[in-house]
Amino acid sequence: MATVTKPSIPKGTRDFGAQEMVRRNYIFDTVRSVFKRYGFQPIETPAMENLSTLLGKYGDEGDKLLFKILNSGDFISSAGAPLHANADKAALQICEKGLRYDLTVPFARFVVQHQGELTFPFKRYQIQPVWRADRPQKGRYREFYQCDVDVVGSDSLINEVELIQIVDEVYQKLNINVTLKLNNRKVLAGIAEAIGAADAVVDITVAIDKLDKIGLDNVNAELESKGLSANAIAKLQPILQMTGTRQQKFDVLKQTLTSETGKKGIEELETLFAYIDALDLKLNVELDLTLARGLNYYTGAIFEVKANDVEIGSITGGGRYDNLTGIFGLDNMSGVGISFGADRIYDVMTQLNLFPDDAVARTKVMFANFGGADELYSLKALAQLRKAGVSAEIFPDAAKMKKQMSYADKKGIPFVALCGETEREAGTITIKNMLNGEQQTLSLADALNLLAN
Amino acid sequence: MATVTKPSIPKGTRDFGAQEMVRRNYIFDTVRSVFKRYGFQPIETPAMENLSTLLGKYGDEGDKLLFKILNSGDFISSAGAPLHANADKAALQICEKGLRYDLTVPFARFVVQHQGELTFPFKRYQIQPVWRADRPQKGRYREFYQCDVDVVGSDSLINEVELIQIVDEVYQKLNINVTLKLNNRKVLAGIAEAIGAADAVVDITVAIDKLDKIGLDNVNAELESKGLSANAIAKLQPILQMTGTRQQKFDVLKQTLTSETGKKGIEELETLFAYIDALDLKLNVELDLTLARGLNYYTGAIFEVKANDVEIGSITGGGRYDNLTGIFGLDNMSGVGISFGADRIYDVMTQLNLFPDDAVARTKVMFANFGGADELYSLKALAQLRKAGVSAEIFPDAAKMKKQMSYADKKGIPFVALCGETEREAGTITIKNMLNGEQQTLSLADALNLLAN
Repeated sequence: MATVTKPSIPKGTRDFGAQEMVRRNYIFDTVRSVFKRYGFQPIETPAMENLSTLLGKYGDEGDKLLFKILNSGDFISSAGAPLHANADKAALQICEKGLRYDLTVPFARFVVQHQGELTFPFKRYQIQPVWRADRPQKGRYREFYQCDVDVVGSDSLINEVELIQIVDEVYQKLNINVTLKLNNRKVLAGIAEAIGAADAVVDITVAIDKLDKIGLDNVNAELESKGLSANAIAKLQPILQMTGTRQQKFDVLKQTLTSETGKKGIEELETLFAYIDALDLKLNVELDLTLARGLNYYTGAIFEVKANDVEIGSITGGGRYDNLTGIFGLDNMSGVGISFGADRIYDVMTQLNLFPDDAVARTKVMFANFGGADELYSLKALAQLRKAGVSAEIFPDAAKMKKQMSYADKKGIPFVALCGETEREAGTITIKNMLNGEQQTLSLADALNLLAN
Repeated sequence: MATVTKPSIPKGTRDFGAQEMVRRNYIFDTVRSVFKRYGFQPIETPAMENLSTLLGKYGDEGDKLLFKILNSGDFISSAGAPLHANADKAALQICEKGLRYDLTVPFARFVVQHQGELTFPFKRYQIQPVWRADRPQKGRYREFYQCDVDVVGSDSLINEVELIQIVDEVYQKLNINVTLKLNNRKVLAGIAEAIGAADAVVDITVAIDKLDKIGLDNVNAELESKGLSANAIAKLQPILQMTGTRQQKFDVLKQTLTSETGKKGIEELETLFAYIDALDLKLNVELDLTLARGLNYYTGAIFEVKANDVEIGSITGGGRYDNLTGIFGLDNMSGVGISFGADRIYDVMTQLNLFPDDAVARTKVMFANFGGADELYSLKALAQLRKAGVSAEIFPDAAKMKKQMSYADKKGIPFVALCGETEREAGTITIKNMLNGEQQTLSLADALNLLAN
């Protein structure tokens, strides 16, 4: 006999009970139904990937956040040499596998590995958990689900348009008002080029991002501290100070950006906005030059979606990446994708009370158990109800009625069926409505009608 | 830039493409719909559990098959002492977490941890992957899904009956002919007691199991080699040689088994068979005294389900366990459950060609892309079709028609929509049936009718 263990789960992980499961599945089902209607197909990849697949794809910080799996068997002998004193290096001697960190790198690996079997452009969606050894905190978990949808093998902007339509439809269905922020990596590169600081894209974007919080003077000071010349900073001022309508912003950009890359970026953004305007989308779309998520990764469009009515980070994001499968040896595969964050969407819907009333895991009717022949009669009636799709159960013991009713009550079961000798002999069922206490004795067919909707 | 990595996945793991996903989901959806109609509620637990939860629950062999997760950060320093030379011991110095090995132990942990929030009897189902560092071989994987359904907190045999009904319904829905083998741990214990070898339950059961393969004489020789007395072996002969109907077998058991435990086991089996006979189940149920799966674990009923028409191991199994939550400090919680093996069910259905024709991940209609105003017209028609629930896509580029048609063909898309200048000006859609090549030009409403079913 094992010693008694006080039960707990690793920090940053969660159990999901029935209520949370039903609500989470409501989100997953909604997202999935929209993905399907746009012609995306489901795939799944293993939780464990080879570390050679994962390492070096998420930066040094990402490498540290990978959960590594200890090699099976005598991992010490198979390490080949004494363990390195440096933990990061030692880990690679004794671990060959890790848990996936996101769905994008496994997708890229999948595309390259199965390229011979796939039809391109390849449109896939994938809804699976990912794991990160982040410091757990409110709203940040070590195991969480991503819902990714990507097209690979096409550089047409229609793909971006359809992803934006998907965002629009998903959030309409979930009843969340959202704003989609749109940027383009080529525009950011064009700005850096235009001010003669092509290598400083990240610094410039980070600085623009702080404008609202720290003000123009502090942003300029920060740019100077990053080594930007006075001339470059001066040239950046029209961008930093630009205001007004979308068209006015485009006008400033067009005056400032002169490089091929910059012009291409503006053209892409304008094309996207033209589609968006023509398609009568419900969501709000904004040009946002401060948007820089995954900057070293994206090469064209960058998307981010925020809920309008709740203070929370982005609930969906993504962009275009031209070289993703290149790291696995397959070049010239442009892709674009977005990822829906199920946990944050769940939090938004909970805060705004948006889950529909029927998103509950509830048995429709519980048969009280009177034992013997009554029990068997109940079991046969149960079989009929279940055949008609009614979720139904029987209390497993002929316990005291109070105990049985209390069970139904605690589980929120709306109807209790009572089948005693009278009902059994008459071939009827007495149904008690647990909300108003009313009872009625019905034929099985009528009971079915009552319970089946 | 990272160096090019030849893409592969860890041995024993799998990628699932769209076709496999749809077929697997067909199995999961079927199982889930039946579980729900019996009043079971979904839960999920984290992939990672504390090793203290997992270790010692699956025997020494099971402990070795646990995938262990290397502690994050400087695992060497936090080991506290130099690593033990023994790998099993060293692993515990540097790993606190492991991947779940089954769904039963996490369920027991869940019940104890959340006992205050649960209503008992607690009926839950859980469909999630599990991981075992088994040697990979045909049909055995290191990551595979289990579909578990359990009741905890009730020792009523109605729970066993309902689980058997669930098995019956699931396999009727999946169209697989099955035999459910039924045994009872108390009967096995009773046999061992009756022949004066109460400690030899496992040896006796293993020997009985070999009867068909090695014959009576060899079984008796094996029992002797295990240390059973000549007297005990002689007393076992009526059991070993029993034949005939279920009733005849019960008669032999009743003559042989005299202990309280043995009598109780016979009574439980007879009660179950009485329910099964009364409920008119479609599946075949057999008494099988050789059935001993998880013997050290189960305390009452033992179930195993085999497909009648395919040579393959059991596709579902389970039983009653009286002490499962005891290892986590919660006593007197009897439970009973079964687990459906999705991978083997998939193999059976593939071999027997049982997947329905519509279990495919297929876009219903692809719009050819003629660019410009035609493209926008197509996008608007697409939006209408999708609103009506039709899975529809547009080829992303105005590529050559041959290329676009080839894409639709390879993906098995049954209809292609052609919207050129003529259609755009007339407000129509030309639909080409890819199976017979026929084309018709329709109003959007008529196209919707054609495609929506």
